[in-house]
Amino acid sequence: MSPQPARPTQSQAPKAGKWPHNPPPPLPEGALRVVALGGIGEVGRNMTVFEFAGRLLIVDCGVLFPEDQQPGVDLILPDFSAIENRMADVDALVLTHGHEDHIGAVPFLLRLRPDLPVVGSRFTLALVAAKCKEHRLNPNLREVKEGDTTSYGEFDCEFFAVNHSIPDAIAVAIRTPAGVVLHTGDIKLDQLPLDGRLTDLAGFSRLGDEGVDLFLVDSTNAEVPGFVISEREIGPVLDSVIRRADQRVIVACFASHVHRVQQVLDVAVKHGRRVALVGRSMVRNMGIAADLGLLNVPAGLLVNIDEAMTMSDDQVLFVSTGSQGEPLSALSRMARGEHRQISIRPGDTIVLASSLIPGNENAVFGVINGLVRLGADVVHQGNAKVHVSGHAPAGELLFLYNAVRPSNVMPVHGEWRHLRANAALAVQTGVPADHVVIAEDGVIVDMVDGRAAISGRVEVGHVYVDGLSVGDVGESTLSDRLVLGEGGFISITVVVDSSTGRAVSPPTVSGRGFSDDPKALDGVVSLVEMELSHTESAGITDPHRIAQSVRRVVGRWVADTYRRRPMIVPTVIPV
Amino acid sequence: MSPQPARPTQSQAPKAGKWPHNPPPPLPEGALRVVALGGIGEVGRNMTVFEFAGRLLIVDCGVLFPEDQQPGVDLILPDFSAIENRMADVDALVLTHGHEDHIGAVPFLLRLRPDLPVVGSRFTLALVAAKCKEHRLNPNLREVKEGDTTSYGEFDCEFFAVNHSIPDAIAVAIRTPAGVVLHTGDIKLDQLPLDGRLTDLAGFSRLGDEGVDLFLVDSTNAEVPGFVISEREIGPVLDSVIRRADQRVIVACFASHVHRVQQVLDVAVKHGRRVALVGRSMVRNMGIAADLGLLNVPAGLLVNIDEAMTMSDDQVLFVSTGSQGEPLSALSRMARGEHRQISIRPGDTIVLASSLIPGNENAVFGVINGLVRLGADVVHQGNAKVHVSGHAPAGELLFLYNAVRPSNVMPVHGEWRHLRANAALAVQTGVPADHVVIAEDGVIVDMVDGRAAISGRVEVGHVYVDGLSVGDVGESTLSDRLVLGEGGFISITVVVDSSTGRAVSPPTVSGRGFSDDPKALDGVVSLVEMELSHTESAGITDPHRIAQSVRRVVGRWVADTYRRRPMIVPTVIPV
Repeated sequence: MSPQPARPTQSQAPKAGKWPHNPPPPLPEGALRVVALGGIGEVGRNMTVFEFAGRLLIVDCGVLFPEDQQPGVDLILPDFSAIENRMADVDALVLTHGHEDHIGAVPFLLRLRPDLPVVGSRFTLALVAAKCKEHRLNPNLREVKEGDTTSYGEFDCEFFAVNHSIPDAIAVAIRTPAGVVLHTGDIKLDQLPLDGRLTDLAGFSRLGDEGVDLFLVDSTNAEVPGFVISEREIGPVLDSVIRRADQRVIVACFASHVHRVQQVLDVAVKHGRRVALVGRSMVRNMGIAADLGLLNVPAGLLVNIDEAMTMSDDQVLFVSTGSQGEPLSALSRMARGEHRQISIRPGDTIVLASSLIPGNENAVFGVINGLVRLGADVVHQGNAKVHVSGHAPAGELLFLYNAVRPSNVMPVHGEWRHLRANAALAVQTGVPADHVVIAEDGVIVDMVDGRAAISGRVEVGHVYVDGLSVGDVGESTLSDRLVLGEGGFISITVVVDSSTGRAVSPPTVSGRGFSDDPKALDGVVSLVEMELSHTESAGITDPHRIAQSVRRVVGRWVADTYRRRPMIVPTVIPV
Repeated sequence: MSPQPARPTQSQAPKAGKWPHNPPPPLPEGALRVVALGGIGEVGRNMTVFEFAGRLLIVDCGVLFPEDQQPGVDLILPDFSAIENRMADVDALVLTHGHEDHIGAVPFLLRLRPDLPVVGSRFTLALVAAKCKEHRLNPNLREVKEGDTTSYGEFDCEFFAVNHSIPDAIAVAIRTPAGVVLHTGDIKLDQLPLDGRLTDLAGFSRLGDEGVDLFLVDSTNAEVPGFVISEREIGPVLDSVIRRADQRVIVACFASHVHRVQQVLDVAVKHGRRVALVGRSMVRNMGIAADLGLLNVPAGLLVNIDEAMTMSDDQVLFVSTGSQGEPLSALSRMARGEHRQISIRPGDTIVLASSLIPGNENAVFGVINGLVRLGADVVHQGNAKVHVSGHAPAGELLFLYNAVRPSNVMPVHGEWRHLRANAALAVQTGVPADHVVIAEDGVIVDMVDGRAAISGRVEVGHVYVDGLSVGDVGESTLSDRLVLGEGGFISITVVVDSSTGRAVSPPTVSGRGFSDDPKALDGVVSLVEMELSHTESAGITDPHRIAQSVRRVVGRWVADTYRRRPMIVPTVIPV
């Protein structure tokens, strides 16, 4: 491959409008285009679109969970607008595994094209089917397994087993005349996986021999040095914790972490405890896993909560959701002493066998403090080895790069700090720095003559789901929520004579989220009356102008008096 | 000491009203009472009140920084109400060190009694003096140093050097006829401290020989096993980072961490860089530290930002605040590309030489991502050893317990998980479990005949500072802010004939923080008109009842239509 001048960095990249309304540079014949509509520059809502010869292939379609700056939002979707007019061009949606950040937005994409072929492994598709059922959708599912080679229109796909914190995860190689692309999905390299299903490093090596032109690599743990210990090392830790428990034991973990739950079940059996699953998603997913033979549940082991409550404390174990401190989860209710059935007693043992997702610290520590305050012993990753990550850290990523020996690299799945760290690893293994493309959401990467480079950008916004609606909550609403959440509002309602602008009754002033002091706004009525007499004498009758004047004087007053910035909401009603 | 039946746990403790309005059980003659008004069950606003023979001694008076559940709040103060009518009984306020969570509320306490003797070491009092100046207060400062023994009314105090992440920290032993109390303040056991000022373990051992009846111990790191490496080990790491930097270097750390800054200055000198201090508190505190001889600043080393901006990139180093991702800090502005003077360029080096306080993760990672996106290399405790904690972890706490050999222990400074971990360490060193008292804010601990036990409880609320006001923002306002922040509001204003209840004009409906869609509330006007015709025909003229009806129908409509819960704000104006 011939050398090429340094590409523009992302921030220098040309700003394009929405694709295809304001189309990006044309894709040269025989070239492959890659655009992430989510998941690069953030952790979540992974969705990458590949284009070749006018046809599209999508890998993953997940959701992102909102942060503090997105109050009231339930979910954030990838921005489909760049492809919504091209859904007929999509040959398939390939799902690498069944986590929400990879499949959560599938029902929303299927609303645009219900018959879209949805490709994935057995467990992944079972989770998608369950999700689609809730949305009353009947998806067109196409099951594949590792080792399969299948064509979807222009795209020849080959699937590889990868190891992650959910069973049946796959990586996908995409062959087009433009070259070979390998997308890892989420990946780690547990060398002694619980189910014996290794990440297919041998397959990656074979593909590397063939020549991988573009390698999209999970960046989540690229900043973390070294290696992850094996999932199976969690079992003995759980064993030692549960062995010494002489009362109730509650283990919280992710509802899709089948191997973690398997180890809990095995330990429960060993110590003569029956198991109750707590939480709708835990019950559902473990049912699916057991049906598919991915979870081994000895007959008679499971009991429901009501049965469990009648059993002796040392003969029962609960496996629960709520490991991220979700306020409505069973575990949070227990920590607040508000769970309908389970009340925590001194000496109970609670294990958080889970990661602590950044942003959830206060919620999780709040749950731990609540449980500890009730007298429970709480075991968590801060004081025991009860969790290992599902993502390859730096040491394992080096193995991947050295097996695949890619010509071009595109770090995916991560914030900027992760992408940069991953890019540095690629360079350390010998990939030329100018063949490593950091392309956040919306940045167009074209692979032309075996060389990947940024060629433009499409607009990729945040699409918010709030309650039943998708997309009507936008940045303006969120910005209002942030103002209201910080300072509340003061509303001033005045009824004016429409012909003279004269107030026909005293202003009605009230505040919410402003002060507990009933006299806090005592000064406002006379202030507004004075302003209204000014606007009246100035001959102002336009309600909008009167409202502006009221907003201005009240805003100034509250800033001077309180040094606060509530929203000022004047309503002027002409009669 | 004779054995005693297990004390009631905190949650079983009798609930008392405010003290002294609803007085707690009388304190037996010769007994000592201890009540924390802040700092136990939380990290921050440390304040402990000791009572003997009708007189009071206070140790520390700090602030707590708000979390998500306290939106718009600037600071949280200890609840002074239990002592506000007894300020004349206070013999002194002893400050263990100058961190905000130990001194931040001093100006607010001094408003209750301006001449209160404020006792502390030189650096602590200098910081208090600067703070009081901003509040236009002239405090009655009484300087002490380690080794001093001084009486304040009924309380004989002895001060011990302790090592922490700020210079000049002290522990205090309080002697009364009821016994000897030792309060560590914040403490660690750096065995090679940068200033050679060791935690006085020898003094603690001597006090232990004498007999310590009650030991109040910093719990912050009790969950963390082992030992903290020495502060001086940060220097070589900074050296290696700054040595390889060939452009600008910015080091962010806490504005009171004099020893950390000292090491940065030393490395800057070594590599021929001049230093600019960025951030008001950084400039102020380092000025004080230099004046007191605690910070060694070679002549000519410091430059101001304007001078620094004229210098070659490899000859300057900035020491900045903003290490916790505070949105208005210089560092956050740089990360957003909004700093007035300093714009980050590819290849700049930024070091976050600081802890990551739980709850600040998203803010700090946001800053790191912003800097990385601009091309900077960001060094932080996640990828280099550029921070050590100022609090003793478990291994060091064991040294403390074994030196002091206390009869009774009361873990302080921490959430429940920390307090419990600290209590367990005390028990491991041989303190009987029923002599370890976990007493969160407001729980009254009486030491009678050498035995500490819970005897009651005073109400301790959260006192919020928001702008210029203290205390007018309470739980009701915060709860409104949370609702508004999640869902915004819909306001409906109707003007009715006061005698008939008939609407005299169409309802005015508007929403803020509800939707970006201008048609989102299109259904509401007719809904409200219909409801008003119902109330009118039912003969309802009371504006309050009409408002309730409007709130109900609109609330139900929005729940059905959107599955959201904005605040519904009806205003009914009778004319």
